[in-house]
Amino acid sequence: MTATDELIDRYIAAWNETDPNLRRDLIARTWRADGSYLDPVMAGDGVEGIDAMIAGVQARFPGFVMRRVGEVDAHNDRVRFGWALGPDGGEPVVGGTDFGVTDGERLAAITGFIDFAPA
Amino acid sequence: MTATDELIDRYIAAWNETDPNLRRDLIARTWRADGSYLDPVMAGDGVEGIDAMIAGVQARFPGFVMRRVGEVDAHNDRVRFGWALGPDGGEPVVGGTDFGVTDGERLAAITGFIDFAPA
Repeated sequence: MTATDELIDRYIAAWNETDPNLRRDLIARTWRADGSYLDPVMAGDGVEGIDAMIAGVQARFPGFVMRRVGEVDAHNDRVRFGWALGPDGGEPVVGGTDFGVTDGERLAAITGFIDFAPA
Repeated sequence: MTATDELIDRYIAAWNETDPNLRRDLIARTWRADGSYLDPVMAGDGVEGIDAMIAGVQARFPGFVMRRVGEVDAHNDRVRFGWALGPDGGEPVVGGTDFGVTDGERLAAITGFIDFAPA
């Protein structure tokens, strides 16, 4: 497992961590302080902004779990990977592909795209 | 056809333009002056750097044509699209997904990822 694989595992784990203190610590270890997230329906800037964004998704979709789908594909300081979100143990409801830029240790930016979603 | 669709069409057209003057003009209309391209095997910075990179690929794979595959998927100032490269009229040899950031009019950055390539 590469350092980038571990970074993306921490990123996914942060989406699933519902303890506020643990989630914030995980985000701070995973993201640069000036990191940013952007997808078609939400955005978060900095550790606090990303934490608030994830807390909002958790509140809206209680019991949902984010999973990585497929391999992490990385080159230079760039990365992409698939993900799916749905009820724990159930079929995913939404899935997509995230593109990221890292600083070698932490995430600088993630852009999310949706691959499938409810009609 | 959206402005982003047209931008990506110009981007693809630049890869296929073998007249040096026309290609450079197309790149200058498509990319910001400080635009940058990065994939697992090559990189180009600025209009001159991107032009030299594309000229190198054209010299190495004469007669090959780049095509867009599928729809352009855009949100905010971000875009992704598939592409394939191969002999004109033949099966593609290499294909991938490009992820880009625009300034609303021109490309600021493209990161290429490979989806299939010769073993």
